Amino acid sequence: MSNSPIVNEILSKYESDIEGSSSTKKLQDLLNSGKLSGTGKLIIYPVDQGFEHGPDRSFSINSKAYDPHYHISFAIEAGMSAFAAPLGMIEAGVSTFANKIPFILKCNSSNSLTNIKDQAITGNVKDALRLNCIGVGFTIYPGSEFNFKLIEQACHLFREAKESGLITVLWSYARGSMSKKGETAVNIISYAAHMACLCGAHIVKVKLPTSYLEDDPTKDAFIKNNIQINTPVDRVKVIKKSCFNGRRIVVFSGGEAKNDNELLNEVKAIKEGGGNGSIVGRNCFQRPRDKALELINNMINIYKN
Amino acid sequence: MSNSPIVNEILSKYESDIEGSSSTKKLQDLLNSGKLSGTGKLIIYPVDQGFEHGPDRSFSINSKAYDPHYHISFAIEAGMSAFAAPLGMIEAGVSTFANKIPFILKCNSSNSLTNIKDQAITGNVKDALRLNCIGVGFTIYPGSEFNFKLIEQACHLFREAKESGLITVLWSYARGSMSKKGETAVNIISYAAHMACLCGAHIVKVKLPTSYLEDDPTKDAFIKNNIQINTPVDRVKVIKKSCFNGRRIVVFSGGEAKNDNELLNEVKAIKEGGGNGSIVGRNCFQRPRDKALELINNMINIYKN
Amino acid sequence: MSNSPIVNEILSKYESDIEGSSSTKKLQDLLNSGKLSGTGKLIIYPVDQGFEHGPDRSFSINSKAYDPHYHISFAIEAGMSAFAAPLGMIEAGVSTFANKIPFILKCNSSNSLTNIKDQAITGNVKDALRLNCIGVGFTIYPGSEFNFKLIEQACHLFREAKESGLITVLWSYARGSMSKKGETAVNIISYAAHMACLCGAHIVKVKLPTSYLEDDPTKDAFIKNNIQINTPVDRVKVIKKSCFNGRRIVVFSGGEAKNDNELLNEVKAIKEGGGNGSIVGRNCFQRPRDKALELINNMINIYKN
Amino acid sequence: MSNSPIVNEILSKYESDIEGSSSTKKLQDLLNSGKLSGTGKLIIYPVDQGFEHGPDRSFSINSKAYDPHYHISFAIEAGMSAFAAPLGMIEAGVSTFANKIPFILKCNSSNSLTNIKDQAITGNVKDALRLNCIGVGFTIYPGSEFNFKLIEQACHLFREAKESGLITVLWSYARGSMSKKGETAVNIISYAAHMACLCGAHIVKVKLPTSYLEDDPTKDAFIKNNIQINTPVDRVKVIKKSCFNGRRIVVFSGGEAKNDNELLNEVKAIKEGGGNGSIVGRNCFQRPRDKALELINNMINIYKN
Amino acid sequence: MSNSPIVNEILSKYESDIEGSSSTKKLQDLLNSGKLSGTGKLIIYPVDQGFEHGPDRSFSINSKAYDPHYHISFAIEAGMSAFAAPLGMIEAGVSTFANKIPFILKCNSSNSLTNIKDQAITGNVKDALRLNCIGVGFTIYPGSEFNFKLIEQACHLFREAKESGLITVLWSYARGSMSKKGETAVNIISYAAHMACLCGAHIVKVKLPTSYLEDDPTKDAFIKNNIQINTPVDRVKVIKKSCFNGRRIVVFSGGEAKNDNELLNEVKAIKEGGGNGSIVGRNCFQRPRDKALELINNMINIYKN
Repeated sequence: MSNSPIVNEILSKYESDIEGSSSTKKLQDLLNSGKLSGTGKLIIYPVDQGFEHGPDRSFSINSKAYDPHYHISFAIEAGMSAFAAPLGMIEAGVSTFANKIPFILKCNSSNSLTNIKDQAITGNVKDALRLNCIGVGFTIYPGSEFNFKLIEQACHLFREAKESGLITVLWSYARGSMSKKGETAVNIISYAAHMACLCGAHIVKVKLPTSYLEDDPTKDAFIKNNIQINTPVDRVKVIKKSCFNGRRIVVFSGGEAKNDNELLNEVKAIKEGGGNGSIVGRNCFQRPRDKALELINNMINIYKN
Repeated sequence: MSNSPIVNEILSKYESDIEGSSSTKKLQDLLNSGKLSGTGKLIIYPVDQGFEHGPDRSFSINSKAYDPHYHISFAIEAGMSAFAAPLGMIEAGVSTFANKIPFILKCNSSNSLTNIKDQAITGNVKDALRLNCIGVGFTIYPGSEFNFKLIEQACHLFREAKESGLITVLWSYARGSMSKKGETAVNIISYAAHMACLCGAHIVKVKLPTSYLEDDPTKDAFIKNNIQINTPVDRVKVIKKSCFNGRRIVVFSGGEAKNDNELLNEVKAIKEGGGNGSIVGRNCFQRPRDKALELINNMINIYKN
Repeated sequence: MSNSPIVNEILSKYESDIEGSSSTKKLQDLLNSGKLSGTGKLIIYPVDQGFEHGPDRSFSINSKAYDPHYHISFAIEAGMSAFAAPLGMIEAGVSTFANKIPFILKCNSSNSLTNIKDQAITGNVKDALRLNCIGVGFTIYPGSEFNFKLIEQACHLFREAKESGLITVLWSYARGSMSKKGETAVNIISYAAHMACLCGAHIVKVKLPTSYLEDDPTKDAFIKNNIQINTPVDRVKVIKKSCFNGRRIVVFSGGEAKNDNELLNEVKAIKEGGGNGSIVGRNCFQRPRDKALELINNMINIYKN
Repeated sequence: MSNSPIVNEILSKYESDIEGSSSTKKLQDLLNSGKLSGTGKLIIYPVDQGFEHGPDRSFSINSKAYDPHYHISFAIEAGMSAFAAPLGMIEAGVSTFANKIPFILKCNSSNSLTNIKDQAITGNVKDALRLNCIGVGFTIYPGSEFNFKLIEQACHLFREAKESGLITVLWSYARGSMSKKGETAVNIISYAAHMACLCGAHIVKVKLPTSYLEDDPTKDAFIKNNIQINTPVDRVKVIKKSCFNGRRIVVFSGGEAKNDNELLNEVKAIKEGGGNGSIVGRNCFQRPRDKALELINNMINIYKN
Repeated sequence: MSNSPIVNEILSKYESDIEGSSSTKKLQDLLNSGKLSGTGKLIIYPVDQGFEHGPDRSFSINSKAYDPHYHISFAIEAGMSAFAAPLGMIEAGVSTFANKIPFILKCNSSNSLTNIKDQAITGNVKDALRLNCIGVGFTIYPGSEFNFKLIEQACHLFREAKESGLITVLWSYARGSMSKKGETAVNIISYAAHMACLCGAHIVKVKLPTSYLEDDPTKDAFIKNNIQINTPVDRVKVIKKSCFNGRRIVVFSGGEAKNDNELLNEVKAIKEGGGNGSIVGRNCFQRPRDKALELINNMINIYKN
């Protein structure tokens, strides 16, 4: 299969993988997967909320969603780019859905039964290979008291992933040292995204930032150098810039969007700002399947046109 | 030996093991063991109370129970599905009772001489293979300050177990961050059971939950989405749902049942709710052998019919 | 050499070692060593007091005892079953006394310069093999804040020891969570001894318990089930029962016996209660050699007759 | 290529690498790189400020600097000796700029979202080899509560680096136990530089010290033995002395120089004091490229003449 | 080369090394090195004060001492038995002084920028072999909160050293749990020296103790058993006794001797008490070279005659 020019351009920026390495091959597969194939855009469907928030808080509103197959078949039907989940959930569908959608093994998880700002490693590269995954995902918490440990674990995992030709996705969520509001402040998320790139992630996942500026040593530069942050488009551009001036793929989660209009406006902003796509979970599985298919279809149309 | 349809159905849900892996083979052996062979139901006999509560508190009421052979021969005579115990206890009977009942090596244990909510690893996959075990068991404490460490240890053990073709059983006991009553609350146990599935366990072991709802962020969904939790049958269904919508085997311990009637009613609820069986220890060895055989016989009859 | 029936009976209970494994071979060698050869009884001579209490507090009362050779030659002359000591002390005599008495490498030690209830690992299986030892010894502190770590270390050491055909001896000393008096309470020591068995030790070493019952959750069973604990014989029986109903070898240290009469009465109780022997150090090397030889001779005579 | 006498003299002091080891070969390559080739002087261009201070605080003043290629091409154009950066930034340019400038992989990093005086390991020797680097860099914080851990990590990394023929650069930044002013005190930096040499670093990187003397046990010697510290030249000599009397390469960062004149005066002092060069990052990328090229050109001219 | 009788006698006491092991070979080399060759006495020259106290506090009084070559050439010229130093310092002279004096790699170090009573591991057996060292040195702090960790690290290092045929030297310095005065109390140092022997050290290094008795559980035995401690000779004898009744080599550092007379009197006491020699660093390099040579010459003459 020959790549589209935009896919080739994206791939060319992953220089350390460039000579026939299979990480690049896998990244190419991802960019040529689903209905956004060849557009340079991605929609990833993550289902780790059972770990993070518990099964009933996540799935009881649409109780078919207790079943891992519900999610994978949904992602396939919706034409999403990849399915990302923790070990057990991928184990539950790996045979039925083999080769129908790329799997990303989410290798660490937290849970809401504890308030320790840490995560447990539940998967590794061996698991990802056994489960035929295209790559691994990991979460770091910049600002947490465990931030150094998590960064080290991410870099260790990613080293092994690259040796095995897998792609690497880093969820970079600031928390701990900053205000609650600061967790989504644009100066904080820009920092978190840049750190993810420095850790060697192929794909960076952050929340769409607000226009708030956390009052810390990174704030002044925004004012002094007049960085535009008023609109969501502005802020997506800030993040893309902090990701090696656009050399890394960045996908955004929308946080708690109130309605579809807001969500789709965010998608438009991501597109206009040069972002590479969305990670969307709860906004799909916490509504009826047909409504969710419609939402994803609308998102895809925005990214495509 | 050809499997019953129900056994084949259960096995088919362990997709990551499905192509000739010996974990599936061992799971099949377990489901075809004892008097519940072929029913898709299990009664596991665990004897780790000497570690958890001490030998005298556990065994002096029926002093033959100090002898490991007492337990293993009892489990065999009663037609139970498997015997689960820590290293030393299995070492004490591995030759006499070779191939007479599947052994599960319980690989970590706590003890009541300390109040630290942690466990010590006492066995691993090498031990399990040396002792001809069918699988390994492990305990995690969701909510404990050690919960991330225990989850990581479980996932590490289970990875090695699957590489060696063993089955994996996870005891998931919430404690630490919630109220005492909350440890058996249905919203908490549902969460704990789901986490066990995400960790990749073949078999999940939880306590039969009460109708109490711990007051935490997972509570609202039960009320808002009208999850039925009034009867034991309801609550078993909640747990089965949280275990990948029934894709994982779940067995229940009864806690401190007052009399046989109550215990057997619980068994009926487990059956009716779609649970896969029971783990029963103290209710067997803390009574005369003939009474215990009668109890297990009654339980088996309920599960069979 | 053919074993006595009692030795064969003891060996038969170590089922996981039973098929030609060299741990059983080494255990057989131990049971056929010294003047108690073939009786199923053991007297082990441990010299780790230089670590635990310091050299001068241990040896200055009988200053020849500063010399490791003094101890090993004494143990041989007295006809003891084995010599147990930390790395350096065994290194100091391994050539002179090769094959004259079984050596047990004590692999961890504490010291009285610190009050942290922990131990340092000073030896391992590689050391034991290099020094031609028959087995390894280890100490755990049930009840200490380090109890889980120590148990894990013991189980790890013992796994490697069994893989190398060595025997394993576990010193199980409760401390930390209980009262000072509780450290030798019969309910506590029974628990500690049982935990040692569950950890897979071939030989359990505990202190001879008092009739005191520590006030903790394990106490009630002694009263309710009328466990006899009034006499030393009773208490030895309690411990033997907690050691898998007698399936494991248990040896006792006497604590601070006031005079030889008391000590020999303890030995009689150990024998009558079914205990397997004594570990005796300070009562030997803190008196003149001839008096110590006489003491051991008297102990041997009690165990033999 | 034959070396200049000064390069040969410097290389001869790395005695443990001297017989055909490739660390020496790589050090020779470094000393023969860029416009300072053969002079025994170095200017290293480090870009880890995105990690340490965040991307916007570092790069928004000159927004092309968000792009890793900007930095590497600048370093090449300016004729600098090497480019040092964390994993992700080197990955982003490794192919485009292969063999155009030596790369040094900065293997640990901190960040300003936390105030813990520690660093996370993000790269190792495997990464450095994969990315065709000439060597590895590491930061230790003498005086921090993590100082022993960081030193151990540095020595471990450097051992592996030497086994793989890479050179080793140690950033030695005192912090934690001393006053803020003391972090750049000449007695403290002298100590930090000496520790770096003892850790086996080929190249030591410290800040140019002030004339302040931190009031600690190392202060008296400066007064009693009349160590000259008044001028920058004096202080560079102090540091060179503490680096094995000049046997190790030392490069200096300038801290927050106010203007070019001050900066160039520092360079003159480094040269006159016998220092081996500069590490300069922010003074380059936080100004227009042409101004930065001019600055580096001026620095090179000073070092050359 | 044939050994002197005293050297053969000393070697014979290292029984675990006795059959053709190269640790014994290396110990023999050490005992046949320098001007004390064949006497059974040793003077070791350690230069780790740059780590422990800083370079300027250590070397500025005699500024040639900043240069590692100064030290090694001094040790050779003075006819000392061995040179002991951390990684970087040995790397700086390994080629120039190859085979001219035995090197001992000091594998851990502390520093005075922190008050944590711990050390960082900076070298290991691989380093020692690469640098052609005769052995490794390590420091433990009995009484420190890190004492168990340090003991474990020492034993681990020494195991690997013996496997590689290196000799092992243990610096045993009590600190933490006792009074400042107690750090050099004779009951404490005797304990620390014995622990070093139990850890398997070939050579024990302690401070020459004072006649003070720290008030702890080890004190009584000195009074009750009338251990002589009044004179330095008495105290050297106490230490030799605690070192396996003289089976281990013990060398002493003098602490802060006021003048040469005092120092030489200490040497006489070490000799008369049966000690094996001295470790002397600051008393050499903190005076002019000719004065230092004279001092060492005087010490050698005392040890020889």
